[in-house]
Amino acid sequence: MRVARLDIVGVVTLGMITALGGGILRDVLLGALPPATFSDWRYLLVATAGGLLAFALSRQLERVSLSITVFDALGLGLFAVTGATRALDLGAGAGQAVLLGGITAVGGGTLRDVLVRRIPSVLSSELYAVPALLGALVVVVADRLGSTAITWSLAGAALAFTVRMLGVGFRLNAPSPPGRRGTGD
Amino acid sequence: MRVARLDIVGVVTLGMITALGGGILRDVLLGALPPATFSDWRYLLVATAGGLLAFALSRQLERVSLSITVFDALGLGLFAVTGATRALDLGAGAGQAVLLGGITAVGGGTLRDVLVRRIPSVLSSELYAVPALLGALVVVVADRLGSTAITWSLAGAALAFTVRMLGVGFRLNAPSPPGRRGTGD
Amino acid sequence: MRVARLDIVGVVTLGMITALGGGILRDVLLGALPPATFSDWRYLLVATAGGLLAFALSRQLERVSLSITVFDALGLGLFAVTGATRALDLGAGAGQAVLLGGITAVGGGTLRDVLVRRIPSVLSSELYAVPALLGALVVVVADRLGSTAITWSLAGAALAFTVRMLGVGFRLNAPSPPGRRGTGD
Repeated sequence: MRVARLDIVGVVTLGMITALGGGILRDVLLGALPPATFSDWRYLLVATAGGLLAFALSRQLERVSLSITVFDALGLGLFAVTGATRALDLGAGAGQAVLLGGITAVGGGTLRDVLVRRIPSVLSSELYAVPALLGALVVVVADRLGSTAITWSLAGAALAFTVRMLGVGFRLNAPSPPGRRGTGD
Repeated sequence: MRVARLDIVGVVTLGMITALGGGILRDVLLGALPPATFSDWRYLLVATAGGLLAFALSRQLERVSLSITVFDALGLGLFAVTGATRALDLGAGAGQAVLLGGITAVGGGTLRDVLVRRIPSVLSSELYAVPALLGALVVVVADRLGSTAITWSLAGAALAFTVRMLGVGFRLNAPSPPGRRGTGD
Repeated sequence: MRVARLDIVGVVTLGMITALGGGILRDVLLGALPPATFSDWRYLLVATAGGLLAFALSRQLERVSLSITVFDALGLGLFAVTGATRALDLGAGAGQAVLLGGITAVGGGTLRDVLVRRIPSVLSSELYAVPALLGALVVVVADRLGSTAITWSLAGAALAFTVRMLGVGFRLNAPSPPGRRGTGD
């Protein structure tokens, strides 16, 4: 399996898709078009700058995969709560808001993985969708109880971050299908 | 080629994408957002339950691939006629309605195949898109002749199911490009 | 890695996705749904005819990969300027219009590459996104200077075509990340 060899355009393109893809999927599913992350130039600027930074630091980044995991987990939590909040703002139901929080959090990384031909983390990795859904759930439950305070968003993001880091640290996985665990079966 | 090893979250996620993806693509193309399959909580519940059931029965399911093929062909027919019907309801032209019936039927499975890195069935398998388009065509022709009776939907779904099962049973394929059939050519 | 073996349905499906996919992505991002390329039957007809032609000529096409590259570069330029023009017509900002021109130009081919499991050209190939963005930039700058003359569209498409062909001819790539160039590093 040949690893994708990316040039600067590829790195920036992938960076933008990773950063903006989840929010775009969320806004398409909400019918809130054009997507906020696309119609606001500042989002594009930040995503492009992030991609350029990753390009410039790529040699260093390969040596600090732990910090990448930490940043990724932070993004997972923040995207989960902002996605759920935006879904609630646009009138989505509670279940949809939780799901859209999860989609916002994992969507960009899933698109990236498809483009570079990796099995998306959401399908196979240590707890990845679960912490995102938990973080979104905190925001939705608080909203249903009448509170939209920023505290709950921070709590939701922190919960998602913590569960994700525990999943990575202890190599936790959600249960696998019965009968596929053993190699001799 | 490593096969994707999915945990319960991956199985349920894939199940939901397979079940709802085609309808979501159809509604995006029709501009009917948010998609019906997403804004109605019952669709999500059925798709989640189906994914959990598939997870619980995965060991058994591996031994009964014939029944999976049968259920898949049934779904192909039902999605084709419901997709075409919804397209007509929303004012799509005859050609678009046939195509949207086909997209509804094959879209979810195509998204699933992309995520687990298989060549989508619609591109390479025994008759797959053809029966879906035929099933949708029955509904659209009946509609143009003035009848929206459920009988035509059932006839369309039955036609799609039959053609698909014949394709699987006799390993039929649509014609391949000339000059690629033989290995020595 | 097994190459996808496509039948006639697969070839036509891939042809339609390649031809229409970029415009559909653009219209989804602009919220202009249903997409123009989908609601207008003539687009579908041309794309289907192109797919059938490619199927009939596939043996010959394999021997003339140069002319495919030329046609692909022509399409890249035309899609870039029409994409940017449509984005401006629908009120997109200058930055968004340039980006949407690029997405229109590379989107269809990217979807095709994902479906047949190739690393998309936009990520790894000789200059591919860059000429599309340059072509779109010409149209957007002209528009901002008050001219929507067809001349500028032709100039933009010609620029994109020329840069792309130079990229292919001289195997130019955008810069790669530092530290990944050498094999021994």
